[in-house]
Amino acid sequence: MKIYGDIQSGNCYKIKLLVELLGLNYEWVSVDILAGETQTAEFLAKNPNGKIPLLELDDGRCLSESNAILNYLAEGTDFMPDDLFQKAKVQEWQFFEQYSHEPFIAVARFINKYLGMPEDRKADYESKQEGGHKALQVMEKQLSSTPFVVGDSMTTADVSLYGYTHVADEGGFDLSQYPAIEAWIKRIQQLPDYVGMA
Amino acid sequence: MKIYGDIQSGNCYKIKLLVELLGLNYEWVSVDILAGETQTAEFLAKNPNGKIPLLELDDGRCLSESNAILNYLAEGTDFMPDDLFQKAKVQEWQFFEQYSHEPFIAVARFINKYLGMPEDRKADYESKQEGGHKALQVMEKQLSSTPFVVGDSMTTADVSLYGYTHVADEGGFDLSQYPAIEAWIKRIQQLPDYVGMA
Ligand SMILES: N[C@@H](CCC(=O)N[C@@H](CS)C(=O)NCC(=O)O)C(=O)O
Ligand SMILES: N[C@@H](CCC(=O)N[C@@H](CS)C(=O)NCC(=O)O)C(=O)O
Repeated sequence: MKIYGDIQSGNCYKIKLLVELLGLNYEWVSVDILAGETQTAEFLAKNPNGKIPLLELDDGRCLSESNAILNYLAEGTDFMPDDLFQKAKVQEWQFFEQYSHEPFIAVARFINKYLGMPEDRKADYESKQEGGHKALQVMEKQLSSTPFVVGDSMTTADVSLYGYTHVADEGGFDLSQYPAIEAWIKRIQQLPDYVGMA
Repeated sequence: MKIYGDIQSGNCYKIKLLVELLGLNYEWVSVDILAGETQTAEFLAKNPNGKIPLLELDDGRCLSESNAILNYLAEGTDFMPDDLFQKAKVQEWQFFEQYSHEPFIAVARFINKYLGMPEDRKADYESKQEGGHKALQVMEKQLSSTPFVVGDSMTTADVSLYGYTHVADEGGFDLSQYPAIEAWIKRIQQLPDYVGMA
């Protein structure tokens, strides 16, 4: 299988982290968004929404959306519970990630780290802080009572949330206010086969 | 089971539509967001993220995030494929919905319909148009080749996308430009046990 991505994007890094933890064979195809490589006819034929990450199976079938890719690859492994309600909880946290977490934390990081905080994006950056902290508080509450978000063992929901949470400081979020999140980050970084972002 | 929601919210209506199509027994608990009912200690104990819809099972376990709730309720029914790749496709469309569709189409509708298009939100409303049309184009492309987004039969992904697409005109999106979407909307509205939003 091929994974199209850019390792500096948390959404793409999620996939890299999971495939490494699972020990899967894959080819990583680097895609340069700024060079327009997600908007070529060839790429749009694989993902009409023009976004990475993208998974291409050996038979040519394609799957987009980072969290859908994670769950597909994890089915039948320790990272995906068998129980239906637990499976639903994995998805609950992943939809939370895409709706209430990433749009604040990833976007603040992008403005700060990649755009270099231009004057005309400062208000936008500031407006992301409250929502980002709200998301971190929701995670902190859960991780104060269970070691991983869905319970005792690590699932794809943790991979999804780890992607941008562990670099949240690059978006101006001071994680020392969130001791349970910091402990969870350490727990993930100590896994055998863990790989970092860069 | 209980469903906490507000029928004017597309995210809540999705659940109502599916449970009616499935013929499930449920109690609908109306929640008034503007009166602060999603921020009470009692509600936050059920969903720390303070959002509706929320599913409460008879044993007290709770599940939030509209699309996670849909998939949990649909498992084992005709609305959820058995095949793993098809299941992943359902999720792909649902993550697309939450990330690339709802934040444009639902927000434009909210500014126009519920806030009455105040002067200081006009720029925000305008800024949602391009992304909303992009999402509709992605749907139009798919629905020009298959009757439902994942293929020949209706899945929870269609329920997810239907929620805000069928009222997209209230956000300023003229659906007559999207004949395949219009045909898909009619197809859904003709289902036995279909219920509308209001
Ligand atoms: N909801 C998507 C978001 C993916 C996303 O936003 N990808 C960005 C890079 S982080 C991208 O490809 N942007 C290019 C574009 O939108 O043209 C997912 O989780 O995979
Ligand atoms: N990603 C969530 C979004 C739910 C959502 O945004 N709910 C709104 C009503 S449409 C809400 O409860 N807002 C109250 C609040 O944020 O305080 C889902 O799909 O369920």
